[in-house]
Amino acid sequence: MIIQLKKNIATSEKEAILNKVKSLGYKTTEVKTQQGDYLVCIGKKEFDLRQLGHMAGIEDIHRVSDDYKLVSRKWKVNRTHIDLGDGVTIGNGSLSIMAGPCSIENEEQVQQTIGHLVKNNVRIMRGGVFKPRSSPYAFRGMGVEGLKMWHTLARKAGIKIISEVMQVSQIEAMYDYVDVFQVGARNTQNFNLLDELGRVDKAVMIKRGISGTIEELLYSAEYVFSAGNEKLILCERGIRTYERASRNTLDVNAIPILKEKTHLPVVADPSHGIGIREFVDPIALAIVMAGADGIIYETHQKPEEAASDGQQTLNFEESEALIRKLRKTFDLRISF
Amino acid sequence: MIIQLKKNIATSEKEAILNKVKSLGYKTTEVKTQQGDYLVCIGKKEFDLRQLGHMAGIEDIHRVSDDYKLVSRKWKVNRTHIDLGDGVTIGNGSLSIMAGPCSIENEEQVQQTIGHLVKNNVRIMRGGVFKPRSSPYAFRGMGVEGLKMWHTLARKAGIKIISEVMQVSQIEAMYDYVDVFQVGARNTQNFNLLDELGRVDKAVMIKRGISGTIEELLYSAEYVFSAGNEKLILCERGIRTYERASRNTLDVNAIPILKEKTHLPVVADPSHGIGIREFVDPIALAIVMAGADGIIYETHQKPEEAASDGQQTLNFEESEALIRKLRKTFDLRISF
Amino acid sequence: MIIQLKKNIATSEKEAILNKVKSLGYKTTEVKTQQGDYLVCIGKKEFDLRQLGHMAGIEDIHRVSDDYKLVSRKWKVNRTHIDLGDGVTIGNGSLSIMAGPCSIENEEQVQQTIGHLVKNNVRIMRGGVFKPRSSPYAFRGMGVEGLKMWHTLARKAGIKIISEVMQVSQIEAMYDYVDVFQVGARNTQNFNLLDELGRVDKAVMIKRGISGTIEELLYSAEYVFSAGNEKLILCERGIRTYERASRNTLDVNAIPILKEKTHLPVVADPSHGIGIREFVDPIALAIVMAGADGIIYETHQKPEEAASDGQQTLNFEESEALIRKLRKTFDLRISF
Amino acid sequence: MIIQLKKNIATSEKEAILNKVKSLGYKTTEVKTQQGDYLVCIGKKEFDLRQLGHMAGIEDIHRVSDDYKLVSRKWKVNRTHIDLGDGVTIGNGSLSIMAGPCSIENEEQVQQTIGHLVKNNVRIMRGGVFKPRSSPYAFRGMGVEGLKMWHTLARKAGIKIISEVMQVSQIEAMYDYVDVFQVGARNTQNFNLLDELGRVDKAVMIKRGISGTIEELLYSAEYVFSAGNEKLILCERGIRTYERASRNTLDVNAIPILKEKTHLPVVADPSHGIGIREFVDPIALAIVMAGADGIIYETHQKPEEAASDGQQTLNFEESEALIRKLRKTFDLRISF
Repeated sequence: MIIQLKKNIATSEKEAILNKVKSLGYKTTEVKTQQGDYLVCIGKKEFDLRQLGHMAGIEDIHRVSDDYKLVSRKWKVNRTHIDLGDGVTIGNGSLSIMAGPCSIENEEQVQQTIGHLVKNNVRIMRGGVFKPRSSPYAFRGMGVEGLKMWHTLARKAGIKIISEVMQVSQIEAMYDYVDVFQVGARNTQNFNLLDELGRVDKAVMIKRGISGTIEELLYSAEYVFSAGNEKLILCERGIRTYERASRNTLDVNAIPILKEKTHLPVVADPSHGIGIREFVDPIALAIVMAGADGIIYETHQKPEEAASDGQQTLNFEESEALIRKLRKTFDLRISF
Repeated sequence: MIIQLKKNIATSEKEAILNKVKSLGYKTTEVKTQQGDYLVCIGKKEFDLRQLGHMAGIEDIHRVSDDYKLVSRKWKVNRTHIDLGDGVTIGNGSLSIMAGPCSIENEEQVQQTIGHLVKNNVRIMRGGVFKPRSSPYAFRGMGVEGLKMWHTLARKAGIKIISEVMQVSQIEAMYDYVDVFQVGARNTQNFNLLDELGRVDKAVMIKRGISGTIEELLYSAEYVFSAGNEKLILCERGIRTYERASRNTLDVNAIPILKEKTHLPVVADPSHGIGIREFVDPIALAIVMAGADGIIYETHQKPEEAASDGQQTLNFEESEALIRKLRKTFDLRISF
Repeated sequence: MIIQLKKNIATSEKEAILNKVKSLGYKTTEVKTQQGDYLVCIGKKEFDLRQLGHMAGIEDIHRVSDDYKLVSRKWKVNRTHIDLGDGVTIGNGSLSIMAGPCSIENEEQVQQTIGHLVKNNVRIMRGGVFKPRSSPYAFRGMGVEGLKMWHTLARKAGIKIISEVMQVSQIEAMYDYVDVFQVGARNTQNFNLLDELGRVDKAVMIKRGISGTIEELLYSAEYVFSAGNEKLILCERGIRTYERASRNTLDVNAIPILKEKTHLPVVADPSHGIGIREFVDPIALAIVMAGADGIIYETHQKPEEAASDGQQTLNFEESEALIRKLRKTFDLRISF
Repeated sequence: MIIQLKKNIATSEKEAILNKVKSLGYKTTEVKTQQGDYLVCIGKKEFDLRQLGHMAGIEDIHRVSDDYKLVSRKWKVNRTHIDLGDGVTIGNGSLSIMAGPCSIENEEQVQQTIGHLVKNNVRIMRGGVFKPRSSPYAFRGMGVEGLKMWHTLARKAGIKIISEVMQVSQIEAMYDYVDVFQVGARNTQNFNLLDELGRVDKAVMIKRGISGTIEELLYSAEYVFSAGNEKLILCERGIRTYERASRNTLDVNAIPILKEKTHLPVVADPSHGIGIREFVDPIALAIVMAGADGIIYETHQKPEEAASDGQQTLNFEESEALIRKLRKTFDLRISF
C-alpha cells in the first residue's frame, strides 16, 4: 500500500496516520522524493481502505499487489518523465537518443562526437570515465578529470551527459558534471550504491543485470525511489545466455513487459545487446518498434581505434543514418 | 567446397570430377535437389581451385569456410525464395504473413479463420493437427482427418497450409495436404526426420530448437538441403533462458545474424517468442524491423476457448490491427 | 489418481469402474504394462476416494498431485528396479556401472572393451551405432550391422548392451540386440519415439534434454510408462548453460531431486556432463555421493583415436582406477 | 609474465628491471603482497626470458599464458593455503568446514550456534550482518553492532568469523571483527570493492557471480591479488539457469576446473547451490568428492524461524550428521 501525503501535512496528522497503519499490522517506510512524500506500507492483513481514507493529510491511497511498490504502474498509471533541463526530457512521448563512445579518451574525440551529435540534433551524450573491466590490467577510464573536460565542452554545445558511476565515493566527485548517473550491469544489485543514488537530486539510469531478471531490475529501481529519488530510467542491454553468435541476447520482450509493469521510462542499448557493429542498426529499430522510450548506443569517429568496445561501435556516418531511421520508425509507431 | 554441376553433365564427366576430388583428399556428398546437382566436398587440404575449374561438367565452384555449406551465404549470395504456387512466395522481398490457430479444432473454427485471413489478404494459414505435448494426457491434435478437412476448405479459398510434422511416418500421410512442413522446436535435431524431409518436394520450415544455437539451426537446414530439398525456411521462436516474466526469450539478434549467414528466408514467431497475448503486437513489429522475411503467429476467433496456447493467441480484431501495422512497418523498412 | 486393477479383473468389473470414474468427471487412460494394469484418471473435482475403494477389481487407489502420475513417488514409494537378466539389475540398491565407447567402431575395439569390462566385473556396455550429429557430413555410426557384431561378442562374455535408438523404425531392427534402449538428449521430447518405446518389453533409459527441465524428463518417462512400459531409467547428462569452460553443466542437484520425485532409477553421465577427460573422475565420484543408482561413462582403448568424443573418454587404465573408486565411494555412501 | 622480486631488492635494481621490461614493449603493474613483491607484465612480443633472467634482484620469472596471471597455477604450482591463526587454516590439505546462520539475529542464536560448532570441532562460523536483499523493504541485517557481539562470543570459543562485506565503507568498520571477508555473488564484479580488499591484510573469500563464468571469478581474484592481498579463497555457490526445481544450479564441474586453473583454495556452498534443505546433505558430499578444499553451509537452531534462508538451512542435528559424513567422505577421497 502506498499513501501519498499532502504537501502541507501537519506533524500531528502524519503521526496519527503512522499510528493507524501500525495498528493495522503494517510496517512503514517513509519516502520523501523531489515530487512528494509517501508512506510505503508492507503487510498482509486485509482491511477496508476507508479506515484510512478519511484521515487528514492524505492525498491518495493505493493498494499495490506487486512486491515492488513505488515503481509499479498499479500505483501510478501516468508515465513518469524525466526533465534534464534546457528542453531535454526522457519519457515524455518523444524518442530519446543517447549516443557517444564507450570510453571518453581525449578532448579531440569529445569535440568530434559533440559535433556529430549537434549536427543530428541529439541532445544526450554517453561516455565512460570509470570503466568496469573484467581484468585489472585493462584500461579503466580517464576518471573525473576526463569528465570535467567533457562537461566543459558539452555545456557549451547544450549537450547533456550520462556516465557510469561505479561506487558510492564517486557520486560526489561526479555530481556537478553529469546529468544522468548510469548504474552499469555489474552494479544493478549494488544495493549500497542504489541507496546513495536515492539521496541525490539527479536522474539515474539503471541497466539490467548481466543475468538479472526483469523483476530484479524493478526492485533495484525501488531501492533508489524508496531512498528518495524518483528520477529513474530503466535500460535493457541484453542478457547472458548460452548463445555465442552474439555478445549478449537482447531481451526485446523486456521492453513491452517493463512498460506494462512500471511507470518509469524504458530505454535499450543495441550496442551491448548484440555486440556486433553491423547489426546494431536493425536491433535499434526493433527496440523502437517494441515500444522503448529511447535508445543508447555507441558511436566513435574511428571505431577501429576506440579504447574499448570498437567491435560494436558505429562510425558517425552509420550513426547519422541510424538516427534518421530511428526517428522515422518512432514516427510510424506513434501513428498507430 | 561446393561444386555445382551442369544440368546435362555426362556420367563420365561426373566420375572424372569425383576421382579428382578424391585424389585431393576430400570426401564428397552428392546432392540432387529440385534446383540443381551439387557435390559437397569436405576436407582440409589447401589446393588451387583451378585444378578443378577447367573440368567438363562443372557450372560453378565455391569455397565455403563455414562448416555448414549448402545453406551458407558464402556460397550463394542471392537470396533463396520459396514459391508455394498461386502467387504465394516466401523470401522474395515482400513480407510473408502466416497466421492461424495453435491447434485445428473443428470445421467452424477453420472456416472462420479462413474468412479472417481472406479478408485481410493473408495467404498462408498455420495450424497444428499433430501436437507435441509435454504430458501424454494432454490434447494431441485432430490428426490427418483434421488436416484433410482443413485442406479442402483452404484450397477453396486459395489459402496455403503450414503444419507441423512430428515423425517420419506422418510425412506421407500429410504430403498431399500441406504446402509447408513445419519442423517444431522439439524436433530441430531429429535428424532422421530432417533426412526424410530432404527427400520430399515440398517446402520445409525449421523452427529453432528450444535452446538451440543459431549454428545448430543452420546445420539442421543443411541436413534437409544435403538430402535433396532446398525449399527451406528458418524460424526464430524464442529460446529458453532463466527469465520467467515471458514464456520464452525471443532472440531478436538471431534475425540479422541468420540473414547474414544464410541465403534462406528467415521468419519469426512472436506468439511463442513472448507467450503473452497483449505483447505479441509490439514484438511482431520489432521482428519486422529487425529484418525478418515473414512472421508466423497465432490467432483464433475466441482465444479464451482455444484448445491450446490461448494465452498467447490474438483474436481476429487484434490480428487485423496487427496485419495493418506489420505491412506499414515493412514498407518503412524497405524504404530505408 | 491412479487405480491399480486386480490381475484377474472381470470385464464387467472394469466397465463399472470406468463408468464410475467418468461419472465423477475424470478422463481415463488405460495402461497395461509388464507389471500391471492401471487406470490413470485426470480431473479436478474433489471427491471421497471411498466411493471407488469398495468396487470389485481394484487392487489399490492413489491420489497423485503431480501432473505426471505413473512415474511419481507419490503413488509408488517403493523403488523400481530393472532386471536385465543373468543377475544384472539397475536400481536394486547396488551401483550400476555402464561403460564403453561413444561409437562402436570395429570388432577389435569391441573385443578389447569387453575384455576391460569383464576384468573389472562391469556387466553393462554402452556404445552408439546410430549417432546423432549436428553436421550431416559427420560419422553417423555403424548401424545395425555393427550392433549385431557387438551383440555376438557381448553375449559370449555375459555383457549387457545399452545403445541409442534415434527413430521409431530402428526399434524393431535393434530389438533383438539390445538390453536397454537409450533415448538421447536430442530425442527426450520425441514423443512418437517415446510412445513406441512404451510398446516394447525392454528397458529404456531416457537422457535429460539438452536444456530440458527435470519436470520434462519426468513427463517423457510418463509417456513411455503410460504407453505400457515401466522398465525405465532416467539419466542426468549435463545441461546447456552460458558457461564455456565445460562442455555442459552437470546438474548434480537433479540427482537428489529426481530421487525424491520418482521411484525410477536415476543414473548420470560424467563424460557428457563435463566433457573433459581429466575431470570425469571427480565428477563421477560426486555423482555417486549425490545419490545416483548408477553411472554411464565413455572409455576406449585409445581415446585419442576414437571416432567421436575422444576428448571426454577415459583410457582403460583410467577407467579401471575410476571403477575402483566408484565402488569404494558407493560403499561409503550406503554405510551412512 | 610474472617477475618475483627478491625481498631485499635495491631500488636501482628494480628500476633497471622496470626499464628493461618497458623496452621489451610490456606494461608493468607492481604488486606488493603479504608474501612477496611481483611485477606483472602484460604484452605480446615474444622474447628470450634469459634477457631478464640474469638481472640482479629477480627471484623468479614465469610466463603465464592465461589472461589472469597471479592467481594462475601456470605460475605457482604449489597450492596456496590461508592461515587464520590458532591452528585454523584453509587449503592446507584438510577439509575446512564453515557453518552458521544466514543472518546473525541475536546473542542467543550466536551462542547456540557456537556451542554446536565447538561440539563438532568446527572452527569457522559464517553469518551475515549486512544482507544484500532484492527488496529494499526486507531485513538488511544487524550491522556492525551485531558483528561486535558475535566477535566477542566467537573469540571466547576459539571460533573464526567469515562475514559478507558489501561496500568499501564497511571494510574498516568490520576489519577488527572478521577473519575472512566474504564477497557475495552480487559483488563478484564490484571492482572497487575488490581493489580495496586488496589493500587489507585479512583473508577474502570471493563467491562466484550469480551468472558469473569461472574465468570472471578468476579475474575477480586477480583484482584483489594485484592490489596486494594474496589471502584468497574462491567459492562456487550455484549459477542461474533455466531450471526451476532448485534455487540455483550448483556447478559441480567448476570445482575440478578451478583446482586445475588456480593455486587458490576452492570451497563450495551447497545451501545456496541447491536451496532446498533436505538435499543439502547429498550435494555437500558431492562437493567434497569433486575435490573441494572446504564447504560453507547454513545451519540454525530453528531453521523454520530463521530471519532469512530458512528453507535451505539445516538444524543442528542435521548439521552434526552432515559434518560426520563430510569428514568420512574427505578421508576416503584423500585415500585415493
